[in-house]
Amino acid sequence: MKKALVTGGAGFIGSHLVENLLNDNYEVTVIDNFSTGNMRNIKNFINNERFTFKLHDVTKPFDGYFDEIYNLACPASPIKYQKDPIGTLKTSILGIINVLDLAVNTGAKVLQASTSEIYGDPLIHPQKESYWGNVNTLGERSCYDESKRVAETFCSNYFKHKNVDVRIARIFNTFGPNMQPNDGRVISNFIVQALNNKNITIYGNGSQTRSFQYIDDLIRGLRKYMSLQKDELSNKLTNENWNQVPVLNVGNSSEYSIVELANKILNLLPDSKSKIIYESLPSDDPQRRNPDIYLAKKILNWETSIDLNQGLINSINYFKNLKE
Amino acid sequence: MKKALVTGGAGFIGSHLVENLLNDNYEVTVIDNFSTGNMRNIKNFINNERFTFKLHDVTKPFDGYFDEIYNLACPASPIKYQKDPIGTLKTSILGIINVLDLAVNTGAKVLQASTSEIYGDPLIHPQKESYWGNVNTLGERSCYDESKRVAETFCSNYFKHKNVDVRIARIFNTFGPNMQPNDGRVISNFIVQALNNKNITIYGNGSQTRSFQYIDDLIRGLRKYMSLQKDELSNKLTNENWNQVPVLNVGNSSEYSIVELANKILNLLPDSKSKIIYESLPSDDPQRRNPDIYLAKKILNWETSIDLNQGLINSINYFKNLKE
Repeated sequence: MKKALVTGGAGFIGSHLVENLLNDNYEVTVIDNFSTGNMRNIKNFINNERFTFKLHDVTKPFDGYFDEIYNLACPASPIKYQKDPIGTLKTSILGIINVLDLAVNTGAKVLQASTSEIYGDPLIHPQKESYWGNVNTLGERSCYDESKRVAETFCSNYFKHKNVDVRIARIFNTFGPNMQPNDGRVISNFIVQALNNKNITIYGNGSQTRSFQYIDDLIRGLRKYMSLQKDELSNKLTNENWNQVPVLNVGNSSEYSIVELANKILNLLPDSKSKIIYESLPSDDPQRRNPDIYLAKKILNWETSIDLNQGLINSINYFKNLKE
Repeated sequence: MKKALVTGGAGFIGSHLVENLLNDNYEVTVIDNFSTGNMRNIKNFINNERFTFKLHDVTKPFDGYFDEIYNLACPASPIKYQKDPIGTLKTSILGIINVLDLAVNTGAKVLQASTSEIYGDPLIHPQKESYWGNVNTLGERSCYDESKRVAETFCSNYFKHKNVDVRIARIFNTFGPNMQPNDGRVISNFIVQALNNKNITIYGNGSQTRSFQYIDDLIRGLRKYMSLQKDELSNKLTNENWNQVPVLNVGNSSEYSIVELANKILNLLPDSKSKIIYESLPSDDPQRRNPDIYLAKKILNWETSIDLNQGLINSINYFKNLKE
């Protein structure tokens, strides 16, 4: 039986991954400090004898023998990661160091949850993995962006110099059930506002675009990525002229403006009395971000398949139940 | 009597700074693990009763009460920082965390030695402090570039959220006595090659440019920067529309091509039998880097004053003595 460790397994993405791994007959250990994770997300697994939960902060070392380690521990929404920026920096950096050191000692395969935020406010569209990004070291988002960037640098060097089988996934905007209602991300914000008949707040004029990936598509992509053998992955990447640590964008390449998104949600909730209002744009908010997923398609034979409307319906149902 | 801590004080820049502080009647403590620092650089201070040396690695916490902490500990030449990239990452990141935590506890003023490398292979010339840079998270230089970038992010957040009086200096190419003969930087390379009648190796076609600052100019700039009171500095920066952690480029804005540099050195050593040869350019080598020092001029009333020829003569004399 395969064993997996999921750091941040009580979080939004983590909890879906845990469910998927358990369904696939893995033994799964979660470590989480509940900084943004939530007991609600894992309560269904507690009675599963293949599930272990440890309250632990990834900034402190941990051990155990695992075939696969998924390093998802880090606050990921601006409101949450800006609440304690120094804590965010340490979680992201010390967390990956602890994961990689454990992998050196045990031979575990590692998936690092990187992010489209390493591209910052990109100067080219869509973003290929070879794009270096445009990030302000001193900005409001830098505690997340820069610590995720240097986490990639750690992965790259453990891959080259310590032979760690690590794969980096640059995860683009993802949504679905188990998002926190108060984490300030645009889809949960809009749905919660619409369900409560409150104004839907758009920052800026709403013409900024985002690509939204439904959680199930992401999980399927991450599992496919980790299912490849090291040599197989390496051969495939070499054929694509990528001769360094594996890095794949994982996201939906369809773009929607924020205004379109708000209207889609209002259309799905015709009884809502919410109106759209506009507020000023926070600093360093990227105008546009869109993944080039050529590599993921080629290497994983993967692309997103769940359309935005279906994902929104599932998410609305989740937030409705949460309210009741 | 003022007390200063210089991390990396046995290194090239550190040892000059220590000399300057001792001459200014400071009590100076150096911590250094001799990873690239050298006993030779500090042997003249050992008999000074205001000087203390501790063999210590900045990745491990340290304490003491100091008025000023200069955080210079990190290998800084590509050959040295690429020798142990994971060590470089940890030195740069854990070092600044330890320095900033000490400053939180003791109220010390901190100078962070940042670098022009945070600009990477810049897309604009010259580089202003407001430029975000163009850095590859996965490149050969990223262990240095990205860890120095995220060190700035730590400084910025300790400044904003923990009230630490930290100042970031982005140091551009600097040269002079006490450079290591084998550290692979262009000026020491060329001088050592010319003194030994060996071929002078230019990587690429030599048209790439650099700006070279003589060490005494840098030290004067860093001391001026630290001599300002927090409020004074903050007022001056606010007048320049800079309302975040203080950051100044410190460098010489005169540009020379690598070929020009090689010829200048050969002109100063007319007896050398060395010839210029060309080798292929290493990956991620920036084509051009040049500081915009408008802010340092305005805030510190500082600019470089020692010309390249004079600096080269002093450096040649140093390397000649070292050889004998």
